[in-house]
Amino acid sequence: MHNFEEGSAAVPPRSAFGAVIAELRRTPLLALIAVVPVVFLLERVSPEAHTLLFVLSVAAIVPLAALLSRATEAVAAKTGDAVGGLLNATLGNLTELVIALAALQAGQYLLVKASIAGAIVTNTLFMLGGAFLVGGLKHHLQEFNRVNARFQASLLFLATIAILVPSLISEVDRAPAFSQQLSLGLAILLITVYALGMLFSLRTHRELFASSSHAEEEEKPWPLPVGTVVLIVVTLLVAMVSEIFVGSVQVAAQHLGMTPAFVGFIVVALVGGAAEMTSAFSAARANRLDLSVSIALGSAAQIALFVAPVLVLVSYFVGPEPMSLQFWPGAVAMMLVATMAATLLSNGGRAAWYAGVMALAVYAIFGLTLFLLPPGAPS
Amino acid sequence: MHNFEEGSAAVPPRSAFGAVIAELRRTPLLALIAVVPVVFLLERVSPEAHTLLFVLSVAAIVPLAALLSRATEAVAAKTGDAVGGLLNATLGNLTELVIALAALQAGQYLLVKASIAGAIVTNTLFMLGGAFLVGGLKHHLQEFNRVNARFQASLLFLATIAILVPSLISEVDRAPAFSQQLSLGLAILLITVYALGMLFSLRTHRELFASSSHAEEEEKPWPLPVGTVVLIVVTLLVAMVSEIFVGSVQVAAQHLGMTPAFVGFIVVALVGGAAEMTSAFSAARANRLDLSVSIALGSAAQIALFVAPVLVLVSYFVGPEPMSLQFWPGAVAMMLVATMAATLLSNGGRAAWYAGVMALAVYAIFGLTLFLLPPGAPS
Amino acid sequence: MHNFEEGSAAVPPRSAFGAVIAELRRTPLLALIAVVPVVFLLERVSPEAHTLLFVLSVAAIVPLAALLSRATEAVAAKTGDAVGGLLNATLGNLTELVIALAALQAGQYLLVKASIAGAIVTNTLFMLGGAFLVGGLKHHLQEFNRVNARFQASLLFLATIAILVPSLISEVDRAPAFSQQLSLGLAILLITVYALGMLFSLRTHRELFASSSHAEEEEKPWPLPVGTVVLIVVTLLVAMVSEIFVGSVQVAAQHLGMTPAFVGFIVVALVGGAAEMTSAFSAARANRLDLSVSIALGSAAQIALFVAPVLVLVSYFVGPEPMSLQFWPGAVAMMLVATMAATLLSNGGRAAWYAGVMALAVYAIFGLTLFLLPPGAPS
Repeated sequence: MHNFEEGSAAVPPRSAFGAVIAELRRTPLLALIAVVPVVFLLERVSPEAHTLLFVLSVAAIVPLAALLSRATEAVAAKTGDAVGGLLNATLGNLTELVIALAALQAGQYLLVKASIAGAIVTNTLFMLGGAFLVGGLKHHLQEFNRVNARFQASLLFLATIAILVPSLISEVDRAPAFSQQLSLGLAILLITVYALGMLFSLRTHRELFASSSHAEEEEKPWPLPVGTVVLIVVTLLVAMVSEIFVGSVQVAAQHLGMTPAFVGFIVVALVGGAAEMTSAFSAARANRLDLSVSIALGSAAQIALFVAPVLVLVSYFVGPEPMSLQFWPGAVAMMLVATMAATLLSNGGRAAWYAGVMALAVYAIFGLTLFLLPPGAPS
Repeated sequence: MHNFEEGSAAVPPRSAFGAVIAELRRTPLLALIAVVPVVFLLERVSPEAHTLLFVLSVAAIVPLAALLSRATEAVAAKTGDAVGGLLNATLGNLTELVIALAALQAGQYLLVKASIAGAIVTNTLFMLGGAFLVGGLKHHLQEFNRVNARFQASLLFLATIAILVPSLISEVDRAPAFSQQLSLGLAILLITVYALGMLFSLRTHRELFASSSHAEEEEKPWPLPVGTVVLIVVTLLVAMVSEIFVGSVQVAAQHLGMTPAFVGFIVVALVGGAAEMTSAFSAARANRLDLSVSIALGSAAQIALFVAPVLVLVSYFVGPEPMSLQFWPGAVAMMLVATMAATLLSNGGRAAWYAGVMALAVYAIFGLTLFLLPPGAPS
Repeated sequence: MHNFEEGSAAVPPRSAFGAVIAELRRTPLLALIAVVPVVFLLERVSPEAHTLLFVLSVAAIVPLAALLSRATEAVAAKTGDAVGGLLNATLGNLTELVIALAALQAGQYLLVKASIAGAIVTNTLFMLGGAFLVGGLKHHLQEFNRVNARFQASLLFLATIAILVPSLISEVDRAPAFSQQLSLGLAILLITVYALGMLFSLRTHRELFASSSHAEEEEKPWPLPVGTVVLIVVTLLVAMVSEIFVGSVQVAAQHLGMTPAFVGFIVVALVGGAAEMTSAFSAARANRLDLSVSIALGSAAQIALFVAPVLVLVSYFVGPEPMSLQFWPGAVAMMLVATMAATLLSNGGRAAWYAGVMALAVYAIFGLTLFLLPPGAPS
């Protein structure tokens, strides 16, 4: 969605391959990309090594997500401001979308839903809280644009309501047909609201969303063809690795003593959002908290209002049966709490390190609960 | 509660009849008043035509509500500021009260409760959201008095809590006697708090509630005798039409494929509030958002803190048995969400069109859910 | 936690005994201390007079709590600012802690939990609301430091989440071992967050928490040895009276027609917090609302983030079995509502009398519900 790391690229790379190499040199994390072929090899050689496949596919997704984020940004930067904003807004969570599609195709609806809820909670609490903490340890007080933060928090609130209602009603009355119809209607509604939100923030009222500290220029984005090629190739790679990940996660989770809820909620969310987290944290360190808040809350809102409803719509064509927007009550409660916490924290437009501690503590409470949850419990 | 429409009345009408005619000429909507005698006629001729009776009584209540609103305003304007405020505040939702009384007398407690909850949700989300949208499409950014908005939102929050507690407790332990006692106590408490709130906003701290844009004078209100006569006559007409409406709603809803929950929550609330909505929307178009917010939230707070408890007290004398303040969980959740949305939206004191879209989207979510709800579900 | 009453002590008392006598002379309430020996005597003579023992022990705890509060303040004042703040923060709710320990030792976990939840709700709604009302009746509008209020409200929100999660999960799946493990983890987490919060508010960002109106000096605190001796002696007395209180409360409540839930939630909380309430109300009357808000919300946050987790940890060594952080749903709902109300009320940094009325009305709703609750219901 945004730049992956700080740094200066004196000589612009000339080819997709060169660009990737240049990127690798600057970001040691990207060295993990060497794991990608290892995963494919291992999957051929010993498809039953679930735990190892799980660990390696997690390690492989992290650098791929980083490249994807950088390529999206490159394509967005070259296609003009409005289209670029649109691209950033729709492809910003491509990794999460691809992983969820792989799970959808495998019929693992519980994993899909856990990863949606987990991504919302992780972006809201862990990414925002981490940015507040990392930034606050270096800067005494940090300011950010409240209008943007409130806008994203309101979008999140809206989406949580949309998810809350079918989950609540279905508790009362278990009618699958009703739940399905309602989910379809809500999905269309959410995507419409999201589209109108982009119209609002990128077009009619863009001046409200101007950051106060965007002056300093970042490193040069890649040329358009490089960006496009990397975007396509890496998306395919993420899709392939995700399939291996989804195939191994169940057995591996059991071996590693983790509940499926914990894996979906915490592990997938942290892996899928690793690239954005690096951006958000380094922006906070550079005292550009506006950017951090925008990445964290914007990404959470996008998952809730775009990725989740798209998955509902796609489920009519992919996978064994249509997926509903109905979540288990615990997941809804966590999303609601995360939204309320984000609203409280972003309301004042100022942050200090302790705000980060509080957000991270709420995240730790959720993580601990999911980790200790008996395997038999609904997840 | 407030002026029904903009316009200028050069010649003040001289009689109640003349006033009504003058009003009719300026407001095409009022032409619907011709439906009133048709309803009464049809009810005599063919009392079994439930669907037609339902549609016609809905059409008849809209202009009557508008006249009632205008008459209340006229009486309030002539009786001095404090008494006028009091009258406006107590009679502002007379239509809703009369409809609910008719349902109460018929023993249709579910309809009474659905119409209370629906009026709160409709005023908070549809009326406020619509005003934001209508105003925002014409004006880039609109400001309003936050103190007033916060005050009304806090009153709403308080009332929702009062309704939440017996509903929550009764889930745990179904003791009708306990629920009844509690409802009686809460009703008295809510009315007391509402009375103190009027003391606060109309007397001790009235300067905080001053609107920033009330300078421009509205059309002249009716003379006091005209207002009084219209008030009495129209109230009686509303009561008679409401009785027909309540008698036909059940069968008609089935015929029209609407769930009873949808009718009570959405249809009755939209019909009962039509007059106030017209005022709120036209005020927003005229860039007097202060007035819109005050109408929308004030009306919602009044229903929660005055109409609902009055119905509980009245139920001891009217209808087969006393009514409790206990609502079904879904209704409580919707009221809570609407209150939180109103708090979020009115917190900043500024609005743009997208704030309206978000409120309307939440309302659409509720409407969709109630529309699709299987008829067997608790409503 | 803070000074117990206003006034001027011309001659500093010279001994612990003299200090207590001087205190007594200024504060008629302290005359209740004469009840303390009566309680001990009665408990020896007629241990079956439960109702009388209950009433007398309640009457005895009030003055002891006041002395304890004053002694803590004296010791804190003499040990330097940082340590003093720490002491105030840890011993501020010593009375509540001692009462809860007595109940813990007697295995009355329901009473322990009701008194924790009740203290949070009472401090947030009754103490804060009372201060707003008392202050507002004398002063038209009062201002207070929003940063401090928001900080304490956020801490409360965090703690309520920590308590919400195990209560919610355990509803779904009743696994006592899981609930116990989770409670232990959450207790450690909460104490850590509380310690970091003190680091933040007393050390790294103390300038944000500076009150705007602390100029006027209070009466001289006691000398350190006096404070220390009184602290130790009175703590022991409170412990002894608490034991009698806990032993008599069950039977007495039945005799007096009060539900156990009402006693734990309302009576114990009002008794334990009587001293702080006197401080908070007299500060509000003196137009030092900053101090009132800080006492009320600070005390609630301390109970949630320090007293409750300490009780969980201590329960591993005292009492028949470890205690969990799992509360009954009604208590969780009340804590959540109280936290939300505190957030709403303290958000603006201004108060008038009606804000107090609203907080007190919510408290009255809770009190009425608990009072009417059928005795068989879960409490």
